[in-house]
Amino acid sequence: MAANTTQYLLDASRMPKHWYNIAADLPSPPPAVLHPGTLQPIGPADLAPLFPMELIMQEVSTEREIEIPEPVREVFKLWRPAPLFRAHRLEKALGTPAKIYYKYEGVSPAGSHKPNTAVPQAWFNAQAGVKKLTTETGAGQWGSSLSFAGNLFGLDVTVFQVRVSYDQKPYRRALMETYGARCIASPSNETAYGRAVLAGRPDHPGSLGIAISEAVEIAAQNDDTKYALGSVLNHVLMHQTIIGQEAMLQMEMAGDDPDVIVGCTGGGSNFAGIAFPFIGQQLRGGKKRRIVAVEPAACPSLTRGKYAYDFGDTAHMTPLTKMHTLGSTFTPPGFHAGGLRYHGMAPMVSHLKELGLLEATAYHQVACFEAGVLFARAEGIVPAPEANHAVKGAIVEALRCKAEGTAETILFNLCGHGHFDMAAYSNYFAGNLTDQSYSEEELAMALSGLPSVPA
Amino acid sequence: MAANTTQYLLDASRMPKHWYNIAADLPSPPPAVLHPGTLQPIGPADLAPLFPMELIMQEVSTEREIEIPEPVREVFKLWRPAPLFRAHRLEKALGTPAKIYYKYEGVSPAGSHKPNTAVPQAWFNAQAGVKKLTTETGAGQWGSSLSFAGNLFGLDVTVFQVRVSYDQKPYRRALMETYGARCIASPSNETAYGRAVLAGRPDHPGSLGIAISEAVEIAAQNDDTKYALGSVLNHVLMHQTIIGQEAMLQMEMAGDDPDVIVGCTGGGSNFAGIAFPFIGQQLRGGKKRRIVAVEPAACPSLTRGKYAYDFGDTAHMTPLTKMHTLGSTFTPPGFHAGGLRYHGMAPMVSHLKELGLLEATAYHQVACFEAGVLFARAEGIVPAPEANHAVKGAIVEALRCKAEGTAETILFNLCGHGHFDMAAYSNYFAGNLTDQSYSEEELAMALSGLPSVPA
Repeated sequence: MAANTTQYLLDASRMPKHWYNIAADLPSPPPAVLHPGTLQPIGPADLAPLFPMELIMQEVSTEREIEIPEPVREVFKLWRPAPLFRAHRLEKALGTPAKIYYKYEGVSPAGSHKPNTAVPQAWFNAQAGVKKLTTETGAGQWGSSLSFAGNLFGLDVTVFQVRVSYDQKPYRRALMETYGARCIASPSNETAYGRAVLAGRPDHPGSLGIAISEAVEIAAQNDDTKYALGSVLNHVLMHQTIIGQEAMLQMEMAGDDPDVIVGCTGGGSNFAGIAFPFIGQQLRGGKKRRIVAVEPAACPSLTRGKYAYDFGDTAHMTPLTKMHTLGSTFTPPGFHAGGLRYHGMAPMVSHLKELGLLEATAYHQVACFEAGVLFARAEGIVPAPEANHAVKGAIVEALRCKAEGTAETILFNLCGHGHFDMAAYSNYFAGNLTDQSYSEEELAMALSGLPSVPA
Repeated sequence: MAANTTQYLLDASRMPKHWYNIAADLPSPPPAVLHPGTLQPIGPADLAPLFPMELIMQEVSTEREIEIPEPVREVFKLWRPAPLFRAHRLEKALGTPAKIYYKYEGVSPAGSHKPNTAVPQAWFNAQAGVKKLTTETGAGQWGSSLSFAGNLFGLDVTVFQVRVSYDQKPYRRALMETYGARCIASPSNETAYGRAVLAGRPDHPGSLGIAISEAVEIAAQNDDTKYALGSVLNHVLMHQTIIGQEAMLQMEMAGDDPDVIVGCTGGGSNFAGIAFPFIGQQLRGGKKRRIVAVEPAACPSLTRGKYAYDFGDTAHMTPLTKMHTLGSTFTPPGFHAGGLRYHGMAPMVSHLKELGLLEATAYHQVACFEAGVLFARAEGIVPAPEANHAVKGAIVEALRCKAEGTAETILFNLCGHGHFDMAAYSNYFAGNLTDQSYSEEELAMALSGLPSVPA
């Protein structure tokens, strides 16, 4: 009945002062990013219309440490260092000899890890004299995080939200408005691309691909406006490494060291955040650990996708990157972990998978909600549907330890709370939540449309 | 643009080991609690059908310190000690010379201060061999907190939720179910009282009074079942004093000392939590501070109610307590801070008001949402609609300091986050939120119905 609680809290003075850039420690660099027209490697100048130069230089940097600006660290102190817990009650509920730890990123004002990159992105844009930021959002986690961050540094933020989410999930939109952002249902009449889509189908429900295209169009056409992306890119993943660096210090406080590290993967950023600092340690001769990426079975880029050059968006406006992809025309079915519904995987995560530095697994949503409810009853925190995938992955590892009788140490990233996602839990309890699948034909069709790039 | 952040975090080892009982320091005791039939003071035995004896003894205790059991402190470590912040960015936005601090209770798994009493109530019930707890809830903050706490100690929790909230606000219900509780729309067919109400009006929308009556009926009739209340009672207020005790240590860390302390008041428990330890210090010869209770203008028990004996519920099943009351038949209009819609004020808070130890003020909801949005844009955290009243009160004090040119220190309690309440923010941004009022006739009528108790 009674159980101990152990929360490992870092003093603010120990919050990391640098991001960790895994590019510095790679045995081989990731494949070049290609221009979609020329198929030649792109340079910093090609990205300049969309991003400020400081972020572009981070994107291509091979320096191991990049300093976190002091004003960014000051904002982080609103919720960082984030706590790390030993999940004593979950261990007990599972009857496992394994030790389970979780890093909790739901303490941020937006309730997830997304502000870890939204704040520096807003800061570097503001420093470069940018006045306005555009972005896209599905359910709204990224949009609300960028709204929060932009507001702190005096930037106007415009978020193109996929119309079906805009209509059905007004709560994160209200959060964006609370932070002073403009949230527009996409497709919209504000862009040429949006108007073209609406001309073809006035009641179009929208898609992340369309919303990206609208946000990019506005940024490309206005000198005072840049674009911000919430995952996938190298600099975004690097901004999240503050998670793993803190976790490393906290595991030291606990006098323990993880054997297995688990994170959920959509675009790859929270997973990279917890995993990259540990992988880097290994690359520099340190302990070899199992690193497990958990993805939704309904959108399994790492486990079922092809490692190939592909577009980042459905409208084919972005550069080509080599990544595990289901094909840019693949439409994931409508499951609840909206943050994991992306056809591709971050190129850096994909590269590490190819190097054999991480493994991947996929679970369906009902099993993930089951895991999330078990976790909530044991530990109190209700995870976001995305985070339930990491919880599921950690529980699978803990039950394996039970079966094997081994007392391994498991660390996972609980990337956000589920207080905005209780409708999904309602559906789960009402028995209305089912596993979603794509057809093999659909996947084959999407993969057959991959752009052809000479080797 | 950039600003400092100062978060004062207590080490877990400094979490208070005792609750502070203000009854020990009062210059005069509060008026007796009376039996509704005999009008004679009630004793512990009268409360035994509803509460375990340990909680009843806390209710009537005059010991200054009551130990927090170790298993309760272990659960608290899931989110306590809770942080205290200096609101540098809000000060800047207001241009005030005042220093503003806020204690943040939204870090609990349920997102508010309510688990501070739900956990010990569940623990003492479990220790007494109780198997089941019943309670009532409106919007669901208290119901979800008791569900969380009961689950941790193996208790079955049944929550009677006001039907209109049950139907319109399914998200906190989903949270209760996540924690394994049964949530029943009230009036229900599970109690004689519920059936009687439904017989009169099958589509009755319910009320907190009816839900209390149903929860109490089940507890009174079953030996293994007790009732739990989330505010108003002495022991509930005392459980919240961990807030003020922590804040006191954190203000010491900050090298500062509040001149004004602000909290919002519905039943009075979060206000008591932050204020009582400071009032106690004053009663023992310490610094005199201004203590400001902020209530909704649409349900203003402290500012417009009568200090008189009244029932705690609308069905007139509870004992009579002397308190500031709008009359137990008073129906507050439907504003958004559901946690503040109660006709009476905690008897202990009322007594302190009569002793001149605190002041009270009331604001309408639109002004409170305006304050909450200003706060969110400055500090990041989106407050619950209830907490917006405290934010408004603190801002009024800070602007007074600006007008007077005085650099006072203001401390307020941010009792919960608003992530479950974004529909209210949506309404606010859409311009659909209006101030709600009762009519003077209605208030006069409710006050004329107060029970007559000989002096």
